[in-house]
Amino acid sequence: MKQMKSSKPPVAVPAISISRLSLYARRLATLERKGVEMVTSSVLADACGVNSPQVRNDLSYFGGFGVKGVGYYVGELLFEIRKILGLDKQWRLGLIGVGDLGTALLKQNQFANDEYAFVAACDKDPKQVSRQIGEITIEPFDSMERAFNAAKVEIGVINISHRLAQKVADKLIKGVGVRGILNFSAADIQCPKHVFIENVDFTLSLDKLCYRLTSSSPR
Amino acid sequence: MKQMKSSKPPVAVPAISISRLSLYARRLATLERKGVEMVTSSVLADACGVNSPQVRNDLSYFGGFGVKGVGYYVGELLFEIRKILGLDKQWRLGLIGVGDLGTALLKQNQFANDEYAFVAACDKDPKQVSRQIGEITIEPFDSMERAFNAAKVEIGVINISHRLAQKVADKLIKGVGVRGILNFSAADIQCPKHVFIENVDFTLSLDKLCYRLTSSSPR
Repeated sequence: MKQMKSSKPPVAVPAISISRLSLYARRLATLERKGVEMVTSSVLADACGVNSPQVRNDLSYFGGFGVKGVGYYVGELLFEIRKILGLDKQWRLGLIGVGDLGTALLKQNQFANDEYAFVAACDKDPKQVSRQIGEITIEPFDSMERAFNAAKVEIGVINISHRLAQKVADKLIKGVGVRGILNFSAADIQCPKHVFIENVDFTLSLDKLCYRLTSSSPR
Repeated sequence: MKQMKSSKPPVAVPAISISRLSLYARRLATLERKGVEMVTSSVLADACGVNSPQVRNDLSYFGGFGVKGVGYYVGELLFEIRKILGLDKQWRLGLIGVGDLGTALLKQNQFANDEYAFVAACDKDPKQVSRQIGEITIEPFDSMERAFNAAKVEIGVINISHRLAQKVADKLIKGVGVRGILNFSAADIQCPKHVFIENVDFTLSLDKLCYRLTSSSPR
């Protein structure tokens, strides 16, 4: 009885479905650690506040998963989702700008289920340079290209002032050849089409919270 | 010529539309600072990678905005979106667990356009207690309820180990009466229906990035 049949989607998959795949993977990883073998779509649906048909719809973009009337094999579905998301390898991150947030990131270093690891970091501040955090030694800003190339950085994590962000992004793209940037700065970074940027802004989460607080209560 | 006519939406507004309203507001605030008076839907669309009809659709949940064939008045649309999102006031945040990330948050303290401000913080670590960061003095963990009530905290920001997160959330809800929680921990916090939780997890942004990197290149 073969459960899985993942394939490249023929249509563009909505970003929201991709985000839910991440959440399904988190829930599946937790279940796997607990030794659970089978899971229903409604359990996965609970993991991100949707319903079972939505789970089946999200997965349907990538082929046929699961056993009708029974559910999904936890280990196999996790394996397939990781493959879909590109998380069947460890991604090498380079941090630009350490500061307090960067220090927190480097101390944690291994994220999710070891799917991400910082392999290099640099900072402008002479007080940060040569500091050791975990296995990473902070390099001077001017050595970024050399250090990031040597460490084979694949994704740049920008955590510097928005005034410098574009310049650093250009260097990362041209000098290091990264194709992915995680941007913690407030800058609206422009980049060529082959490069992808994700902006991380927790104030957007706060905005969502405030809308729900406001729209659910008399003003 | 009256441009605006915002009203309570008769239907549930999709979460993604709310997120886009935040992004429109950011773009509008930038334009306002630059002294721009009018904006087209396509400029707003650019701010979050959608198209003009999507912008009009997002706004249509809340009434009629804009002047046909001309665009939107920047200041007025910003005012209305802020009202919709509940950002026409400053929200009072209380931080539980300082650490490196919390220190970064407290140093920044005022977020977005002063729509959020930390008014209290507490920590378990005796080394953190009594430390002053900006205008905030870190309180001991055991004094959280007293300190947060005194500071009139409306939203709790949880930045502690996932093992303690649920206990802290319960205290925030029952002892302080907060109705909104921003959760930086990995815990899957359960709460009563009148309380809203937003989980902040930048690894989800990394997952999205990796999917785009993986699906756009030969493997």
